[in-house]
Amino acid sequence: MAASQKIKIGIVGATGYTGVELLRLLASHPHAEVSVVTSRGEAGVHIADYFPSLRGVYDLVFQAPDEADLAQCDTVFFATPHGVTMKEAPALLEKGVRVIDLSADFRLQDVPAWEKWYKHTHSSTDILKEAVYGLCEMNHEAIRKARLIAVPGCYPTCVSLPLLPLLKAEALQIGKPLIADCKSGVSGAGRGASVGTLLCEAGDNFKAYGVAGHRHLPEIKQTINQLQSGVAEHFVFVPHLTPMIRGMHATIYVHLQENLNPHHLLSDFYSNSKFVDVMPYGSTPETRSVRGANICRISVQRAPESDVWILMSVQDNLVKGAAGQAVQNLNIMFGFAEDAGLQAAPLLP
Amino acid sequence: MAASQKIKIGIVGATGYTGVELLRLLASHPHAEVSVVTSRGEAGVHIADYFPSLRGVYDLVFQAPDEADLAQCDTVFFATPHGVTMKEAPALLEKGVRVIDLSADFRLQDVPAWEKWYKHTHSSTDILKEAVYGLCEMNHEAIRKARLIAVPGCYPTCVSLPLLPLLKAEALQIGKPLIADCKSGVSGAGRGASVGTLLCEAGDNFKAYGVAGHRHLPEIKQTINQLQSGVAEHFVFVPHLTPMIRGMHATIYVHLQENLNPHHLLSDFYSNSKFVDVMPYGSTPETRSVRGANICRISVQRAPESDVWILMSVQDNLVKGAAGQAVQNLNIMFGFAEDAGLQAAPLLP
Amino acid sequence: MAASQKIKIGIVGATGYTGVELLRLLASHPHAEVSVVTSRGEAGVHIADYFPSLRGVYDLVFQAPDEADLAQCDTVFFATPHGVTMKEAPALLEKGVRVIDLSADFRLQDVPAWEKWYKHTHSSTDILKEAVYGLCEMNHEAIRKARLIAVPGCYPTCVSLPLLPLLKAEALQIGKPLIADCKSGVSGAGRGASVGTLLCEAGDNFKAYGVAGHRHLPEIKQTINQLQSGVAEHFVFVPHLTPMIRGMHATIYVHLQENLNPHHLLSDFYSNSKFVDVMPYGSTPETRSVRGANICRISVQRAPESDVWILMSVQDNLVKGAAGQAVQNLNIMFGFAEDAGLQAAPLLP
Amino acid sequence: MAASQKIKIGIVGATGYTGVELLRLLASHPHAEVSVVTSRGEAGVHIADYFPSLRGVYDLVFQAPDEADLAQCDTVFFATPHGVTMKEAPALLEKGVRVIDLSADFRLQDVPAWEKWYKHTHSSTDILKEAVYGLCEMNHEAIRKARLIAVPGCYPTCVSLPLLPLLKAEALQIGKPLIADCKSGVSGAGRGASVGTLLCEAGDNFKAYGVAGHRHLPEIKQTINQLQSGVAEHFVFVPHLTPMIRGMHATIYVHLQENLNPHHLLSDFYSNSKFVDVMPYGSTPETRSVRGANICRISVQRAPESDVWILMSVQDNLVKGAAGQAVQNLNIMFGFAEDAGLQAAPLLP
Repeated sequence: MAASQKIKIGIVGATGYTGVELLRLLASHPHAEVSVVTSRGEAGVHIADYFPSLRGVYDLVFQAPDEADLAQCDTVFFATPHGVTMKEAPALLEKGVRVIDLSADFRLQDVPAWEKWYKHTHSSTDILKEAVYGLCEMNHEAIRKARLIAVPGCYPTCVSLPLLPLLKAEALQIGKPLIADCKSGVSGAGRGASVGTLLCEAGDNFKAYGVAGHRHLPEIKQTINQLQSGVAEHFVFVPHLTPMIRGMHATIYVHLQENLNPHHLLSDFYSNSKFVDVMPYGSTPETRSVRGANICRISVQRAPESDVWILMSVQDNLVKGAAGQAVQNLNIMFGFAEDAGLQAAPLLP
Repeated sequence: MAASQKIKIGIVGATGYTGVELLRLLASHPHAEVSVVTSRGEAGVHIADYFPSLRGVYDLVFQAPDEADLAQCDTVFFATPHGVTMKEAPALLEKGVRVIDLSADFRLQDVPAWEKWYKHTHSSTDILKEAVYGLCEMNHEAIRKARLIAVPGCYPTCVSLPLLPLLKAEALQIGKPLIADCKSGVSGAGRGASVGTLLCEAGDNFKAYGVAGHRHLPEIKQTINQLQSGVAEHFVFVPHLTPMIRGMHATIYVHLQENLNPHHLLSDFYSNSKFVDVMPYGSTPETRSVRGANICRISVQRAPESDVWILMSVQDNLVKGAAGQAVQNLNIMFGFAEDAGLQAAPLLP
Repeated sequence: MAASQKIKIGIVGATGYTGVELLRLLASHPHAEVSVVTSRGEAGVHIADYFPSLRGVYDLVFQAPDEADLAQCDTVFFATPHGVTMKEAPALLEKGVRVIDLSADFRLQDVPAWEKWYKHTHSSTDILKEAVYGLCEMNHEAIRKARLIAVPGCYPTCVSLPLLPLLKAEALQIGKPLIADCKSGVSGAGRGASVGTLLCEAGDNFKAYGVAGHRHLPEIKQTINQLQSGVAEHFVFVPHLTPMIRGMHATIYVHLQENLNPHHLLSDFYSNSKFVDVMPYGSTPETRSVRGANICRISVQRAPESDVWILMSVQDNLVKGAAGQAVQNLNIMFGFAEDAGLQAAPLLP
Repeated sequence: MAASQKIKIGIVGATGYTGVELLRLLASHPHAEVSVVTSRGEAGVHIADYFPSLRGVYDLVFQAPDEADLAQCDTVFFATPHGVTMKEAPALLEKGVRVIDLSADFRLQDVPAWEKWYKHTHSSTDILKEAVYGLCEMNHEAIRKARLIAVPGCYPTCVSLPLLPLLKAEALQIGKPLIADCKSGVSGAGRGASVGTLLCEAGDNFKAYGVAGHRHLPEIKQTINQLQSGVAEHFVFVPHLTPMIRGMHATIYVHLQENLNPHHLLSDFYSNSKFVDVMPYGSTPETRSVRGANICRISVQRAPESDVWILMSVQDNLVKGAAGQAVQNLNIMFGFAEDAGLQAAPLLP
């Protein structure tokens, strides 16, 4: 396929970490080409001046968001704060542009819940209904036909992937707690200037946050509810900030029906997956083993002297937890090989 | 009290992180003075050449372990791998030297359990009986009269302190899981040369370890069993390695008797404590808030839409989790102010 | 001396890193007590809520800057951006309050140079003349009698201390380059929210900055000029940002008069210093060896197969490079032991 | 080109950081395929068990070094400590296998110098003469025809690339110092277990090392001497360790002939280079801008109020400083596109 035959990509809000990661991944995509990047604040600035890592990779200039230019694209990615896509997506969809939204605007089907957690009125409840939740391993068929994808949040991806095969099999005991203790690298907090994510504040430090309620809680519960009823009520989620740049680790404590082997369930379910790797029983995955790659690695162990099972999953929060999963959605939507542009091995060390 | 009236301290195995931390803390102790430091490997080397941070602080040379010299001390700290104190403590105790053991030799009263977890024959089961478990907030009276202290492990300290008031009040529901998801800085792994703790392996990385069984598991269970029966059976413990030097965070998921307010229980129990700080309800403690100080900070929150309570505790694993707690034991044993030498404020940032 | 006899300290602008470090150091000062802390933005907030590391250490509330309250103090530290002290110091000096300024307002005696580098009109040129440059090892006598101290910048301290004995001896060759290649931890950039010092930007990264001209360049040149003429003209200074929280390292390349032994010169000059440690010839100092302590360690080596000498110096930029040196000035001004409140050993690891 | 037509690659000593980086880069090489990986210590272990980042990428098992198997390869990379290649390369060369040596064995043409710096007798001085120093931007033609490549050390690459155009133009003033102050991430020290590179020793720390003489000093001097005489005599090199995983920064202080514009010289020289990026005048390159990529970025600034020019260069020490440059050599030797397998954009953040 010649360069001229590549599909055209637009990225709205490309100055954040999700945006620059999309740019990195799409730079080596065989069938897609970024042709429009927008940023209200950096309009007129060359990408390569803003992100020196992309010198020689792109010859593009950030432009102010312009519907006409974006409408020339086959697909537009939104890497924006919540509230933007819901305003701009409808016009693009009408012109036949498919939208892949990395913000939270279309993640929750329950509008009141969305408005409560995001403290914002939802202005596009009509198209919300057709939005497909882009957890590729769960909704592959729907993604293939979708016009509008809500790319899952980073925590929901890392927690849902190991639970998916178990919930589908209705393997969780009802009435028992389901606890997800999650740890994220600091890039999950975004690229905005803030004291809390300064190197001198977040470095050499570990803490929980959002214990009283994090926006990814209702999102994970929504997924659980779609798969096995009676479980979400006992779901507990505590996110923590860990002093590293990329990477996310979920430690999930589950009670399963007796005589079930969760390792078999997981291994079978993901046996053909290119992006979810079920490790040998007894392994402990580490975040760096997926740095820069669109992979979620999972392992399972039984807690010693206990009936609790421990699921551990790792991902690069900016790749499988955001930009990589977005590209995976693109590939499914357009019928490309699912790993097009996503084949590079993780960067270790 | 003149310098000549200070009690004399010996440190066996002072080249590790626990050892150098003892040296740092004792350097400003008003009533104690380090007079013997031993190291088999570094005998003859000046402390200040080995640890340049102590240049100008100590004028001492590491010497090969020598019973006669150690017997001149009032107290000897063992900062050694397990298996050493059990051999060397008996002779010192006989000569009236009190022993504060930072290794694991005397932490478990159940000898077969100790031998199973440490894969080692216990050679001092006679004096094991009189060893006092040096969790100061639990065993203050026994420590006052002890000749031999087993300083608790870092994880057991961080997990036991928030649980102590609840277990004492028999506040935990029997039959429900009690889960401690713990995260440690890398200094907890010690100063030995090993690939796994290289900056390029442990840096920018997060992982669980010891999931199939960590030596601190039976130690924590022993403490739980002494306080409330029926709880330890449902205890789950998963340690993780987080890319920072000092610091430990425990996130503990508990089911409590109804109508109990754990924040009140904790606040009351520790209202006069100089070293355990119960933070306002809803806080999230961060490890750096105790860096370098002998403090454990605790906070409590109810998991949203759930009956699970979340206890969070932080400590500096080398201070409250090791050397600081050892000095606290020393102070109690000798009737010094409990915070003698332990008053410095944490180092932030 | 009873607590009531301690001198009273005010701190203006105590919410930054220099401010919290002053609070930490003064908490254990035997002869001084912080009684007023001001912050325009955090007025009404308890110190311990703002800096949880100080819970249990201070029972003080930030207040809006108020001249009357500050005038009750014996000494006021300014830990403010430049431009503040020059406005507020004159009124305090008039009331007999001594001022120790950690900002840059009184560091340069050359007003046009100050105005050029700081892009600000100097409004207190009258009291500038009596301001003493608080490099304690150089200006001890003047500090003793001073009312107004300009605490040196972090880079100037780290570069000037190793050069001081050589310049005093007029040991540098005229006409040859004098190059200071300096590396700073990120805390030197302050606690303001900014993208450049986020963990995800400054972490795992190394770069030079301010190559075209850094404000500490004229400050260092001023010191050089006071000691040996003809040298400052050939002085080159390049600061770099290194991914750590605290710590500064200067590598200084000098050409000396023949037959001079700079190690002897340095060792002699600092033989009685409590705060400047000249290490054995051939050492390489490391920044962590002074973490948290008011120490500058220096070593000297001859470049192999060359006539260039290499001076290396390390300090904690927040202590000897800022708050610690400020307290050292306080001690000298009030006739306290020079190391009062400054005796704690460095925190390692 | 079908997979069966790819050239066959062997890697000797693939368990270190250079080895795993070769594996990562070659995994996506269009014309080369790794078919033999050897490790004496890990023989029998599957690559994917040793490096979980490579799960699903390679289906290979480490084998004990075996000349017959290696002789089946088109090219063998040696990622070994010095002393190995000189023993094993001759037999392979005889069988027509080309050798790309990442160790130091063939970097210095001066045998006595090599033996002095490496404290080892050189056993292959005969083939040393034909070894080509694989600094691609300097020796492109010779590499094309070479059988045996000595891949340059990381520091020599980072220092030589910015100097190359200036030395070729004989632009440096004779008799003036040429100073390279270099800073390396910790991966440069390798993957061996050692105390000095533990996270708790090298983390949050900065220091110089090897000041009295580093093995890369004679290597850099050799290159300088080949380009402009009279300069190497005044070359000073100080390496430092900076707390990050990957990345190297050289700050080079040079005196140039008058009226020369080094930015023009550099820009012209590298105008067609895919791997050396001369940034706009006044830039400051940062190491993360090349993380994971085979790029050296260079910038130039005049020191303010001085006649000294400052060259700054950054590279990923494991890529352009080692494995990437090795693959670039491979590409040149076999007539592949010079950037085959080396096109991935840097990983930022």
